[in-house]
Amino acid sequence: MSDERKIDVREAERHRAKMEKRKAVQDAEVAGKTVEKGLLIVNTGPGKGKSTAAFGLALRMLGYGRRVGVVQFIKGAWHSGEQDALSRFGDLVAWHTMGEGFTWETQDLERDIAAAQAAWAKAQELMADPTISLVVLDELNIALRYDYIDLERVVAALKGRREGLHVVVTGRNARPAMVEAADLVTEMGATKHHFAVGVKAQKGIEF
Amino acid sequence: MSDERKIDVREAERHRAKMEKRKAVQDAEVAGKTVEKGLLIVNTGPGKGKSTAAFGLALRMLGYGRRVGVVQFIKGAWHSGEQDALSRFGDLVAWHTMGEGFTWETQDLERDIAAAQAAWAKAQELMADPTISLVVLDELNIALRYDYIDLERVVAALKGRREGLHVVVTGRNARPAMVEAADLVTEMGATKHHFAVGVKAQKGIEF
Repeated sequence: MSDERKIDVREAERHRAKMEKRKAVQDAEVAGKTVEKGLLIVNTGPGKGKSTAAFGLALRMLGYGRRVGVVQFIKGAWHSGEQDALSRFGDLVAWHTMGEGFTWETQDLERDIAAAQAAWAKAQELMADPTISLVVLDELNIALRYDYIDLERVVAALKGRREGLHVVVTGRNARPAMVEAADLVTEMGATKHHFAVGVKAQKGIEF
Repeated sequence: MSDERKIDVREAERHRAKMEKRKAVQDAEVAGKTVEKGLLIVNTGPGKGKSTAAFGLALRMLGYGRRVGVVQFIKGAWHSGEQDALSRFGDLVAWHTMGEGFTWETQDLERDIAAAQAAWAKAQELMADPTISLVVLDELNIALRYDYIDLERVVAALKGRREGLHVVVTGRNARPAMVEAADLVTEMGATKHHFAVGVKAQKGIEF
């Protein structure tokens, strides 16, 4: 290839020595990590990728033949690619779309609250199911932000999840108590977004 | 349910009126977005979810029966759940693990460079394949950070991608030229990470 980088013997040796040291550091770090536990994972922030990463995690878990449960708290009956794709895994996926759509679509607070509470009941059911390894609570943070369900009660149930169960919670504006309870919190920051320059939501990308 | 929130008539009406206004704003925003285009998407930052969100996007695309190509630039032959899971989609997924493992594992600069260049050749092949809707270039940012492949050449090829093709590039430390060329850049920030408290990499979560 014409863009091949030329490496001389000294550069190669410097690299090898540096990487040998780095490997020692890395190995020590890995050896220091011994805890195995079911994680409470929170994907929040204004950027794209919160739900997408949660479904990517579901995919990874399914690759090991483990069962995954999904509860969608806000999204309503509209069609999504990930739901269709996960249907390939048959009984390995328990999918529950419990939302009624965005709050500005329903315009009905009582209905939104009832939907969120039904979703939370379903979430608790999935979390109690011993055949399930990972539960995705998609947009739970939104339901908590609007006080559709009781924050303290939800956080207590998440903290008290059975041993080994991984739970992923998505949605902007994670509440401080949720962040505090979590083992892993990722803030998706929108460094640059195509919506800002007039690109619309596209099949396979946004839904 | 005992945690049911009581809503009076006035609160319900205030909510409805507010959401009606919000819907008008939202509808105008959606109407203002008319462009459809193949996106260059970059998932970067120190947090978890960069590759995971890319595979979540692959899943979404597969849900519409569209073909996806994957090139892994750094990860070597080790086993991953997402690879197994995506194998369910048969010919819809073209998966190429081209890396040799982390730089501190190979300790061989020349070998790393050769692997990255072969990966880039494969990436160009997938990008040219008209049957593919989305190409995931996993950890390409790492190969660029270490100058294993030529940045200018790569960015030019990505910018010149065929119409309608979506490309996702992952890896920490995206180069400024990559960010500049992208339509969508998400910075995954590690607000809280379980590795820091001694939890090890676990099946279905990290691999």
